[in-house]
Amino acid sequence: MSDDAFQDHYPEALAHCYGCGRMNDAGLHVRSRWDGDETVATITPGEQYMATPGYVYGGLVASLIDCHGTGSAAGAMARRLGSEIPDDPRLRFVTASLHVDFLAPTPMGVPLTARGRIDEITDKKVVTAITVTAEGQRVAIGRVVAVRMPATFQGAAG
Amino acid sequence: MSDDAFQDHYPEALAHCYGCGRMNDAGLHVRSRWDGDETVATITPGEQYMATPGYVYGGLVASLIDCHGTGSAAGAMARRLGSEIPDDPRLRFVTASLHVDFLAPTPMGVPLTARGRIDEITDKKVVTAITVTAEGQRVAIGRVVAVRMPATFQGAAG
Repeated sequence: MSDDAFQDHYPEALAHCYGCGRMNDAGLHVRSRWDGDETVATITPGEQYMATPGYVYGGLVASLIDCHGTGSAAGAMARRLGSEIPDDPRLRFVTASLHVDFLAPTPMGVPLTARGRIDEITDKKVVTAITVTAEGQRVAIGRVVAVRMPATFQGAAG
Repeated sequence: MSDDAFQDHYPEALAHCYGCGRMNDAGLHVRSRWDGDETVATITPGEQYMATPGYVYGGLVASLIDCHGTGSAAGAMARRLGSEIPDDPRLRFVTASLHVDFLAPTPMGVPLTARGRIDEITDKKVVTAITVTAEGQRVAIGRVVAVRMPATFQGAAG
């Protein structure tokens, strides 16, 4: 498994995302990479991201799934084009739809691991099924439909 | 439309949520209230919550929908029991599932308004359909299935 994350190769103008942008000092810094045919990202949420004391906020789990989904889409599209490194701005994706089923309370203070499986890929769309675990237990499952970033976004970012 | 928000009446031990807890200094402070038969909440996201410069992060929109969904559930269950004020700890809800369809890029620097319609309510579950608008345009629609908070959460919080 490479230490390089897909997000490490996003162009600087597109690296400000609160969820996964390396340029966003306040952000979550989700970093997604290949592990065989799956994608994986791990974060340990800060204490402020609580639902109630001791448990992680669902919106944080949704954000992890969201950014791991768009990251996985970039990685999968790059691999489809013959590269392990999604360093082409045309490979940036945005979320068209996000679904999360919360299976169990998510404990605070431990790493959360999101694993993605690419379920569908076309020229314009990637669908990724994602499972989030904490201490080996499934806490959430999600599905991200990611589509190529519209020109309006790229224009704003460029 | 009352200025009181449902979240203003959450017991202190359950008011630490990053999305809507009044005790969470770092949080988003989503505040939901009735407007007739609909629920409404408005936030203006800070600049850090960007997707790309000029546009709001989808995870922030999902978080708004999430907390407005659980807040709407508390309000709807209270009203069903004859009160406008959900100040009973038994009326706390957590998200069982969250779905968001992103319709358009969400502009930064303007208020985002989430409006909820209660689609289903039983003793243990409330389903809320939520539309998020910015400058009068729909940017996202969502659906939150909220269920009574499990005892494990209440124990951790109490």
